[in-house]
Amino acid sequence: MSDTARVREINDRFYGAMNSLDISEMDEVWMDDAVAVCVHPGREAILGYERIRESWLMIFAATDSMMIASTNELITVAGDIAWVACTETISIMTDEGLAAAAAQATNIFRRRGESWRMILHHASPVPLTTQDEWPDVIN
Amino acid sequence: MSDTARVREINDRFYGAMNSLDISEMDEVWMDDAVAVCVHPGREAILGYERIRESWLMIFAATDSMMIASTNELITVAGDIAWVACTETISIMTDEGLAAAAAQATNIFRRRGESWRMILHHASPVPLTTQDEWPDVIN
Repeated sequence: MSDTARVREINDRFYGAMNSLDISEMDEVWMDDAVAVCVHPGREAILGYERIRESWLMIFAATDSMMIASTNELITVAGDIAWVACTETISIMTDEGLAAAAAQATNIFRRRGESWRMILHHASPVPLTTQDEWPDVIN
Repeated sequence: MSDTARVREINDRFYGAMNSLDISEMDEVWMDDAVAVCVHPGREAILGYERIRESWLMIFAATDSMMIASTNELITVAGDIAWVACTETISIMTDEGLAAAAAQATNIFRRRGESWRMILHHASPVPLTTQDEWPDVIN
């Protein structure tokens, strides 16, 4: 399996952890490191996996279900570091109802031995595509 | 000079290019690469330095003056790749008046020989700190 395929796999696994609201999967995806960084949409950076983990626990506790998909992945591998720029489309059911959103994400991964782990996740809100912007073939 | 110091220097130079609205400085900071990525606050990713450069030209043309400062830098160096998580505080004068904003940024740099170049910039809006959140000693 190529490095690019492995990085795509761990990137997919990160979004799988969000979809399953599974903190033990997050623990498998992230590097347990004090310099790990997580930026949730519209928020300041959270530093260190201990605090990042707490933020996921809070998000999962407040979420009944989440459907998040990653598309348009641009994967760059440079030695033991790789990063993915991708688009997130999100449907999330909370106590306050259903919300839909889109985000642009930067995910950095670091290789340790054979396995890649997430060391940075930065997601930021982008406008949802409106119907007018859809291809004519769909409208 | 340590790698961390060099990365801090190129990160500062990036914000210097914004402050001086100087596209030739941007050309010195960025890697002229098709996989370069730039995410302006609230926008989708722009791919490739050619298109990224056009976006800076548009921003600079619409801007009378800009004051941007980077703080809280967390710099991680891993071989020939380094990344900086930092907070941007921005005052910008446009045709529509003065605007103040804060952003969280992720900047990835790649080493080629002795010099580091920017390969990814991702900035996303964060709420400005309100007076209520300032330390008591200031209020």
